Amino acid sequence: MSAPLADQLDIVIPTIRNLDFLEEWRPFFQPYHLIIIQDGDPTKRIFVPEGYDYELYNRNDIERILGDKAWAISFKDSACRCFGFMVSNKKYIYTIDDDCFVAKDPSGKPINVLEQHIKNLLTPSTPFFFNTLYDPYREGADFVRGYPFSLREGVPTATSHGLWMNIPDYDAPTQMVKPRERNKRYVDAVMTVPKGTLYPMCGMNLAFDRELIGAAMYFGLMGEGQPIGRYDDMWAGWCTKVICDHLGVGCKTGLPYVWHSKASNPFTNLRKEYKGIFWQEEIIPFFQNLTLSKTSTNVEDCYLELADKVRKGLGHIDPYFSKLADGMVAWIEGWRLLNPPAASLEK
Amino acid sequence: MSAPLADQLDIVIPTIRNLDFLEEWRPFFQPYHLIIIQDGDPTKRIFVPEGYDYELYNRNDIERILGDKAWAISFKDSACRCFGFMVSNKKYIYTIDDDCFVAKDPSGKPINVLEQHIKNLLTPSTPFFFNTLYDPYREGADFVRGYPFSLREGVPTATSHGLWMNIPDYDAPTQMVKPRERNKRYVDAVMTVPKGTLYPMCGMNLAFDRELIGAAMYFGLMGEGQPIGRYDDMWAGWCTKVICDHLGVGCKTGLPYVWHSKASNPFTNLRKEYKGIFWQEEIIPFFQNLTLSKTSTNVEDCYLELADKVRKGLGHIDPYFSKLADGMVAWIEGWRLLNPPAASLEK
Repeated sequence: MSAPLADQLDIVIPTIRNLDFLEEWRPFFQPYHLIIIQDGDPTKRIFVPEGYDYELYNRNDIERILGDKAWAISFKDSACRCFGFMVSNKKYIYTIDDDCFVAKDPSGKPINVLEQHIKNLLTPSTPFFFNTLYDPYREGADFVRGYPFSLREGVPTATSHGLWMNIPDYDAPTQMVKPRERNKRYVDAVMTVPKGTLYPMCGMNLAFDRELIGAAMYFGLMGEGQPIGRYDDMWAGWCTKVICDHLGVGCKTGLPYVWHSKASNPFTNLRKEYKGIFWQEEIIPFFQNLTLSKTSTNVEDCYLELADKVRKGLGHIDPYFSKLADGMVAWIEGWRLLNPPAASLEK
Repeated sequence: MSAPLADQLDIVIPTIRNLDFLEEWRPFFQPYHLIIIQDGDPTKRIFVPEGYDYELYNRNDIERILGDKAWAISFKDSACRCFGFMVSNKKYIYTIDDDCFVAKDPSGKPINVLEQHIKNLLTPSTPFFFNTLYDPYREGADFVRGYPFSLREGVPTATSHGLWMNIPDYDAPTQMVKPRERNKRYVDAVMTVPKGTLYPMCGMNLAFDRELIGAAMYFGLMGEGQPIGRYDDMWAGWCTKVICDHLGVGCKTGLPYVWHSKASNPFTNLRKEYKGIFWQEEIIPFFQNLTLSKTSTNVEDCYLELADKVRKGLGHIDPYFSKLADGMVAWIEGWRLLNPPAASLEK
């Protein structure tokens, strides 16, 4: 099996249990370094299958490393994974949930998710005009008639959002209404989400370029002590998309698929999502209408400007958003602590 | 074979030759009424396979029916097909090129293009937010977590843009660079082109709702006496997309596929496209930045406003664009002549 960029990519896994799921991934993941974020009780021992190279951080580690900024990393929620994005020193991140397994393509071949995500990240994006034959850089495809030649060089790709066979990523109401729905459709496509369009970015099977967008990949304040859950990846998706649009880099979605094995409990999910279902009706127009200033020319500056806009533009919904804005600022402080400019030059 | 909406849809075919290609389409097309636009020499006799119900218009017919507005219908170019859109009295149009044949899905089953286009047109579009599992109205799919509930009703669908197996719709330079490239990838998806994003709409395999967008489906001035060709469908695509965005209706692309049998001559194509390749670099930003006024609340008014903007905004490129703006106005006059308000109430 090929292991592209094995020395330039970390796999980040948030978990509360033993990582037996890595047995199935061994042919694909073993050449890579893992960053495991242990959520919940830090005294619990998490077992990682033999032969994997990994570092593991529990809550005590996060507190120790981030000190008075540690509060910005969620507890008892998979949002804690973003600590792994911060602590990595690689150029690329792949993050996956521990209930996701190897999917097969229509020919029955196991899908090498990293190979596809890396292809997605290393080929350009095309956010300014839609290509009807999907990814124009893929073998056997190109730009169709009428695609402006000036746009065919594309722009760098920041994010590669992969999909899920079997259990689709539905919200609690849809899970409740369609308890038996399974995703059986393998759509053989990768595409750029157009500039100006938001998409629901799911953290289950996600890769990104840490240098291009890592500093905006904060998964917000969820879980213990917070009024919502299950909006961590959505928050990161809205924030990264508007910043990618502003900076002129791209977000792709489509291949590769993972096999998502089990649906989370819809009743628990409804409790977590409840406020988010209302709030997103205001948050999404906020992001759709948001413009960042021309003076914000790097991700960190964009993110701090965004934090300020969140405080002013969403604070009226709930005091939570002021706290979230504080969290965004603390996140950037933590990011700078662990990723000082000098260190990133040495990379 | 099912023949959905057989009494509400016309198939429009521009041609210069005998329509032998309809033999292969017989199981799917015979229940429908055909409108054949005979291009070129009007004295030539075009043969249509037995058993088809059709009306045929040649240049003399167009001159007779449209009188002093007939000049706006292109001659010696497949752009002439739009006369068929105008003369139809059905709610839906499907238009296809005579070098397109029945494609097969991955299971080997012949694809019923009309069945899929009609599904696309009768289910809503979702232009305001991207759904990562593609068409949420398709069986086995839905809106994913994070999709705002207020947007799940969708909006009416105006256009269904189908794709092509075998010969992809490439421009002359790409044809020349990749003479052997064939499209072998069947992507099992339909999606809405997001609001604010333009796409290259190809006229080879296209369906639309005449009532929703027909009056903007003018294929411009191409062919004899004009400085460009092969931009007829592109022009209609740009115009219809900005008007659909303004009116809050949707444009879908993806399934169904046709089998496109033969590539047109790349040298001839280069001669036709040459100026368009330069011009589109200015035309596309013009359309991307265009906004229609709130007082334009129906397609005809939008189209007349657009004609005015084309005259003012593109006239500096070439005198052709003033003439094209005149053509757009003449088109609406012709449309109103053949589709008077009273008559459309009776439909």
